[in-house]
Amino acid sequence: MSFYPPVKVGLLGLGTVGSGVTRVLSRNAGEISRRAGREILITHAAARNLDTTTAHTAGMKLTGEALDVVNDPEVSIIVELMGGYEPARSLVLQALANGKHVVTANKALIAKHGNEIFATAQATGMMVGFEAAVAGGIPIIKAIREGLAGNRIEWVAGIINGTANFILSEMRDKGRDFPEVLAEAQALGYAEADPTFDVEGIDAAHKLTILASIAFGIPLQFDRVYIEGIRHITREDVAYAEELGYRIKHLGIACCNEHGAQLRVHPTLIPKQQLLASVNGVMNAVLVQADALGQSLYYGAGAGAEPTASAVVADIIDVVRTLTADPDNRVPHLAFQPDALSDLPVLPMTEVKTAYYLRLQAQDRPGVLAEVTRILADRDISIEALVQKEPAPGASDVPIILLTYEVQERWMNEAITAIEALDSISAPVARIRLEHLGFD
Amino acid sequence: MSFYPPVKVGLLGLGTVGSGVTRVLSRNAGEISRRAGREILITHAAARNLDTTTAHTAGMKLTGEALDVVNDPEVSIIVELMGGYEPARSLVLQALANGKHVVTANKALIAKHGNEIFATAQATGMMVGFEAAVAGGIPIIKAIREGLAGNRIEWVAGIINGTANFILSEMRDKGRDFPEVLAEAQALGYAEADPTFDVEGIDAAHKLTILASIAFGIPLQFDRVYIEGIRHITREDVAYAEELGYRIKHLGIACCNEHGAQLRVHPTLIPKQQLLASVNGVMNAVLVQADALGQSLYYGAGAGAEPTASAVVADIIDVVRTLTADPDNRVPHLAFQPDALSDLPVLPMTEVKTAYYLRLQAQDRPGVLAEVTRILADRDISIEALVQKEPAPGASDVPIILLTYEVQERWMNEAITAIEALDSISAPVARIRLEHLGFD
Repeated sequence: MSFYPPVKVGLLGLGTVGSGVTRVLSRNAGEISRRAGREILITHAAARNLDTTTAHTAGMKLTGEALDVVNDPEVSIIVELMGGYEPARSLVLQALANGKHVVTANKALIAKHGNEIFATAQATGMMVGFEAAVAGGIPIIKAIREGLAGNRIEWVAGIINGTANFILSEMRDKGRDFPEVLAEAQALGYAEADPTFDVEGIDAAHKLTILASIAFGIPLQFDRVYIEGIRHITREDVAYAEELGYRIKHLGIACCNEHGAQLRVHPTLIPKQQLLASVNGVMNAVLVQADALGQSLYYGAGAGAEPTASAVVADIIDVVRTLTADPDNRVPHLAFQPDALSDLPVLPMTEVKTAYYLRLQAQDRPGVLAEVTRILADRDISIEALVQKEPAPGASDVPIILLTYEVQERWMNEAITAIEALDSISAPVARIRLEHLGFD
Repeated sequence: MSFYPPVKVGLLGLGTVGSGVTRVLSRNAGEISRRAGREILITHAAARNLDTTTAHTAGMKLTGEALDVVNDPEVSIIVELMGGYEPARSLVLQALANGKHVVTANKALIAKHGNEIFATAQATGMMVGFEAAVAGGIPIIKAIREGLAGNRIEWVAGIINGTANFILSEMRDKGRDFPEVLAEAQALGYAEADPTFDVEGIDAAHKLTILASIAFGIPLQFDRVYIEGIRHITREDVAYAEELGYRIKHLGIACCNEHGAQLRVHPTLIPKQQLLASVNGVMNAVLVQADALGQSLYYGAGAGAEPTASAVVADIIDVVRTLTADPDNRVPHLAFQPDALSDLPVLPMTEVKTAYYLRLQAQDRPGVLAEVTRILADRDISIEALVQKEPAPGASDVPIILLTYEVQERWMNEAITAIEALDSISAPVARIRLEHLGFD
């Protein structure tokens, strides 16, 4: 077991996740070398400021200059935990050019620059591990890329942003409104001071981009993801959805058929009995529909120092195991061989078919329902359920809740425009997509 | 991509799972070679009877003699799907001796003879894949062995027998009794004509044996597993558990601390909010508590032709990928290097600490509760909840339901013996263990 020399790792970034990685590698050093068959040592680390109080940096060569680590001939694996596009991108490319393997937790980097990074890795025979970039510590990249390698993957639906899931869970549990819960999430440290990436769906879109690639064998196409956040979800919508047997979750959804791929992030009504509906708080979960296996679900912590470190360390061990393997036989970065990626088009949202939840504010007078249902019928949109609620205290308008069957989004857009033009409709229509996820 | 020659696989067994493997490999041939970088072909297959109506056997050399396949020099991977101990064990050992890698779905074989098989594989430099042996198509072996490789795993709790879970789910949903639901499960084909392996927990114990080894780095010790089935669970117990906020699941539980390992299969009350409690019907799920990641859960189909085939094919692809790797760098069969397994003792059940649900049938007269609670107090057993129910119509006895805090099983055994000796107690005490699984 001690036959092999220790593997020397250089760390870029000693923030939350970087410190977590140093703690996990030091605390579990014994277990890890019992598994990997050799020691894994962080010998070099670069950090913007070297106040390293929560990191275990004993024996490490510390520097403020990341390029020093990347260029150090002693280091064989670079772990990039700085986040952001630059200088992360340049440093990763330089590491690969220097003949070092790379492990990263940087979802934005992979989603936006992954194609370039993997091409470079391919050319230099290096590996890039990015398990930590999607759903934190859940080994979802490995599950899809290796565990389900015998399947044609049909779709993936994931709760892949813990902050958004926490907010929606709290809105449901406590009957509270979005701004109130967001403020609480910020106070608890779940949401950043600038929560845009989380609540607008950008972070989820980064992760979904990666999931779609490894599931379907298509290049990373962040710019083609339809992205909708959760700011417009009201506590009334949450409550009405519950009454109808659904729960609102902020999902990243990727699916694929012969016409094209769909990549979309948006709030979604899903059936309460679906296991995904029971994933609450900051937890993440990814549901995968595959042709041989059927549905499988992977659940765990999607963020945090040690959960993310768990994925980073697993990637390091994976790299160590394949150091001696023929590069052609390694698991391809995007699950499919680089020359076997598909140029399947990503469909525009107007061509996507889903079911819908609609909430209308209508004047309480005869004929309104007739007008609305006529507009839907004219576009072949079938209604699955329709509920007219009591007006809110002091209000004259009545909320009308509609669930529709599946229809192409272009027709729903038209219908909503027509409904909003009615004299009897007093506010914009609230529209939330609905997916049965196998529970039809 | 077509640079590498096809990998030639020999199949032993063309029953349900064997046929599934041939279907998946043929249907997904394109996707699989896009991933693996080469074709995977079943060139040889052995089956007891060659009525192969549901298998895709075009182009295969078929035989009734499994040893012919094992000894054929053309075949580089043997897939064993016959089940049972013999001749499976001898054939697998022979295949390894012949320099062939092995993939198997045979949980009984691995649980009982895995130590011998892995030692042989180690000596001959061959790989043995057994993902399909635990929880069917869920990639749980890969998740624990590779995805969580940076963690110290604290415990594993799994619903790993679909038949037992179906029965308990139906008992709860429909308020029915065990024998009635078992008969239905048999009619639906979920339960075998002889359901012993499923309802007595033997099948779950095979799988738990394997999970415990890869989680904690201990040898396979099937004979040390405490096994209790679900025959004695009544619909009343199911209903009382629900009232108290719990659900009864048949769990395989393995945990590990400095004193020893626990391996046990038994019905268990778990909190309703625990995601595992929402896993219904024939589905399987494994919950893992790891020191860095925290809780993660893996859910999917635990049986069936194609779900099992999904795991078998993933193993074949894994073997293909590491064909050129230095054997010392491969993922060790039992997750930890063979010379780094631990001799941690497996604790006898009397030393295990759990909480308990107890149901007593007591005469409806003063002093009974005082006697019972005195017996518990004398053994330092604290009561968390106590409910006295109405007598059943026409009955004079009253059911008393108790939830206790954690206590060593030896004291609970003593207490139960003492309680059953009371004049006022008219029937054996029903005892079901209770685990909070992180929800204390």
